[in-house]
Amino acid sequence: MIDIQDRIRNKTLLDRIVTAEEAAAIIKPNMNVGTSGFTPAGYPKAVPMALAERISKEHFQINLWTGASVGQELDGSLAAVNGIARRMPYQTNGDLRKSLNSGKVNYFDLHLSESAQLTRYGFFGGKVDVAIVEACAITEEGHLIPTTSMGNTASYVQSADIVIVEINTSQPLALEGMHDVYVPLDPPHRQPIPIVKVDDRIGTPYIPCGLDKIKYIVPCDIPDDVRDFAPIDDNSKTMSELAIEFFKHEIKAGRLPKDLLPLQSGVGSVANAVISGFVDSDFKNLEVYTEVIQDGMLDLADAGKLKFASGTSFSPSPDGQKRLYANIDKYRSKMMLRPQEIANSPEIARRIGIIAMNTAIEFDIYGHVNSTHIMGSKMMNGIGGSGDFARNAYLTLFFSTSVAKGGLISSVVPMCSHIDHTEHDVDVFITERGLADVRGLSPRERARVIIEKCAHPDYQPMLTDYLDRAEKATKFAHTPHLLDEALSWHARFLQTGTMKK
Amino acid sequence: MIDIQDRIRNKTLLDRIVTAEEAAAIIKPNMNVGTSGFTPAGYPKAVPMALAERISKEHFQINLWTGASVGQELDGSLAAVNGIARRMPYQTNGDLRKSLNSGKVNYFDLHLSESAQLTRYGFFGGKVDVAIVEACAITEEGHLIPTTSMGNTASYVQSADIVIVEINTSQPLALEGMHDVYVPLDPPHRQPIPIVKVDDRIGTPYIPCGLDKIKYIVPCDIPDDVRDFAPIDDNSKTMSELAIEFFKHEIKAGRLPKDLLPLQSGVGSVANAVISGFVDSDFKNLEVYTEVIQDGMLDLADAGKLKFASGTSFSPSPDGQKRLYANIDKYRSKMMLRPQEIANSPEIARRIGIIAMNTAIEFDIYGHVNSTHIMGSKMMNGIGGSGDFARNAYLTLFFSTSVAKGGLISSVVPMCSHIDHTEHDVDVFITERGLADVRGLSPRERARVIIEKCAHPDYQPMLTDYLDRAEKATKFAHTPHLLDEALSWHARFLQTGTMKK
Repeated sequence: MIDIQDRIRNKTLLDRIVTAEEAAAIIKPNMNVGTSGFTPAGYPKAVPMALAERISKEHFQINLWTGASVGQELDGSLAAVNGIARRMPYQTNGDLRKSLNSGKVNYFDLHLSESAQLTRYGFFGGKVDVAIVEACAITEEGHLIPTTSMGNTASYVQSADIVIVEINTSQPLALEGMHDVYVPLDPPHRQPIPIVKVDDRIGTPYIPCGLDKIKYIVPCDIPDDVRDFAPIDDNSKTMSELAIEFFKHEIKAGRLPKDLLPLQSGVGSVANAVISGFVDSDFKNLEVYTEVIQDGMLDLADAGKLKFASGTSFSPSPDGQKRLYANIDKYRSKMMLRPQEIANSPEIARRIGIIAMNTAIEFDIYGHVNSTHIMGSKMMNGIGGSGDFARNAYLTLFFSTSVAKGGLISSVVPMCSHIDHTEHDVDVFITERGLADVRGLSPRERARVIIEKCAHPDYQPMLTDYLDRAEKATKFAHTPHLLDEALSWHARFLQTGTMKK
Repeated sequence: MIDIQDRIRNKTLLDRIVTAEEAAAIIKPNMNVGTSGFTPAGYPKAVPMALAERISKEHFQINLWTGASVGQELDGSLAAVNGIARRMPYQTNGDLRKSLNSGKVNYFDLHLSESAQLTRYGFFGGKVDVAIVEACAITEEGHLIPTTSMGNTASYVQSADIVIVEINTSQPLALEGMHDVYVPLDPPHRQPIPIVKVDDRIGTPYIPCGLDKIKYIVPCDIPDDVRDFAPIDDNSKTMSELAIEFFKHEIKAGRLPKDLLPLQSGVGSVANAVISGFVDSDFKNLEVYTEVIQDGMLDLADAGKLKFASGTSFSPSPDGQKRLYANIDKYRSKMMLRPQEIANSPEIARRIGIIAMNTAIEFDIYGHVNSTHIMGSKMMNGIGGSGDFARNAYLTLFFSTSVAKGGLISSVVPMCSHIDHTEHDVDVFITERGLADVRGLSPRERARVIIEKCAHPDYQPMLTDYLDRAEKATKFAHTPHLLDEALSWHARFLQTGTMKK
């Protein structure tokens, strides 16, 4: 209890320290519960587990709004007891994924930049009833020092009547000062977000809360449920090299400045590998404006190539987490966490001209991208921030290996089985086979380039055959499709276990 | 010649007056030609017709970049002689539509807000070689007073080495002062666009050009090729009433201010009818931040209900055009034209919180929208600004009648045959049958509401049957689809002429 008292700087708050069970008892059925947490970093752990325990006996449900994916202690434990009625905006937890794909949880998948403002607008059925927030510390004034993520926390705290704070002693106090908290006013009062450079500081280093709103304080020492990345394989390495070669070509052509523009890179192993590729490049002074700061960013910083990285969460591997915690003082001058509506802001992405690099589940010959669904019906994780960035970037790249499941699935298909990003939003496609630059091309031109550069040789003849026949069969040649066949590759996979004939 | 000399305020320019033929002679094969014009308003007429005449003899092609759709004199005459290799960003001309759907023209369809910046970035193969601009007048300093549209003109003039000015004497000089010209710097130098209210003036009333860039001046007196709207029918009226009723409900619920938020309304008859519906409502002090100012906006102004309308073109009917020209002094205090990258700016749309109202060709039960293609392959007009607004609005509504072709086509389908707006981007669907508010709903919930509220009774049982069977057949219930059947309605229409079984 000594450590936690050090982290509560206003001693009048000490009598609000309770057990997780006592705090969880305040949550009523059907409440909208908004939590901290983004890509399992900085989410509350003790209170959600206590809540799940209570729900397992009392059998009720809540609506759960987070920043993005959170750890097993929150999504997993609540899904396991069927405690979630509605969930938004992004998830990666296996138990939860099962629940929403079996229809037990109503999952609403939306652009991460919009989740905070749409809850403030009251579009999802009322405001936040209770906010549960992991914090490093509480200031003298009752403001909250966040931990490893910003997410939607500041907005949820602003909207909530009741705030439960989990003081997590596994999170180093040295994180204090690395956050920049800014919640925009809502229309018609909103002002320009005054960021013009990735390291511009526009807010406070704490989440404004105040003594009155803090109902309970719960001690916790469970660390973030961070996970290992897949080892960087040859495919990822090749895709990273293709991207870097393309950037060099664009610099030569005068279409990119020599230090590039701020990089955005998606969540996960491929994205991490792409960023890691820059470590061995001759780029310097790289800037990053992104969602998650993963190991690759630490590598860039360690290699002296990172000028500054702005994100909304630290989401490293277990080893990366150790490295981050052990060297916070080194990283603090080069990294900052912002609320996700600022990190993913369309306004900022377009103004500073980010280079958006995200991964696709599949893309089609005309340049549409599926980021969310397997074979049209099964939700994987959600769209995340990919739409915030892809639509507004200076340059938009999507990455995928050319095949999945050992070649049984082609990632390049005649028509995507679900579309999250349209032909209007993508400049460049990259697989381990090559790079298709589709800027300024008509759909028919795009199709030839994508098949030639990106598709796997096992599927190239099938794709070309589809396109040839579609061009002959339709009177209308702008986007030639055979509607009887467009989704037949996916249907065949579901029936036979392979997209091959 | 007297009138045109009055419009050229620097007399050293008078010796640059040439015939349209002489001006057109400067254009070389494969040049990128950027023109003024947006939804047939304010586009050059004489020089394009002379160019078409020349191409009919010399047989070459140019790349044509405009603001949006332009009139027969430009798109039509050049398409008729096969003079266009590449075209962007939006079109409505019958001859051009035939050409791009037969594969003669490579048409690149993109968000209207992005077309200017992507040409400046050099992403479409070089910069603008020649800009052809319709103007009311040229100032003493060689700057251009635009006519009935802003579009991409200012950016094209900025980028071009050679500018040809058509002084159109059919356009009233009283338009001067109604434009606000602002071209943002490009990343990494871009600053916030300093608009916080629809009537904020941030630029110049003229397009900066300068005496040196003006190569030729061509007199022209051909009026804009404006077209009549379809009469406001019962379906449009019902959809307008449903929207207004919904807005009133939102005000009561505290989710919209009493004077609403700035309205955006798409191009064409349905959009015009929706705006006209506000004339008979009890709303006052309405603000508009949109692309095109059509007759409905004039009606609103005449009814004393319009506080201010910002757009990028005046695109009224022939009668509306007369009304506009006869009363410019009345409208000038209430209307302003901006470059389309400002009118359609995601940054501004989200900051001021527009209410986006656009029309769909079709939408599907899960909330995806097709704005561009007929039966998957045939391009109609292009996405226009619908993506700029839908993604960034405070509230996003899409309108469509529940059926087309006298009932042979259902506008609500199991899966869209082309997707321009995803499930992540739409709040409300409206047909003449009803309104589906899908905010915060999971895909399965959305499907039930959309079928019940929006689909035509002839197709409701078929849609429900599809959904029921999909829910049973798939193991994965997030977005239940039968991939063998998802596009079968469109395939059936192509084969039998009806979507009905």
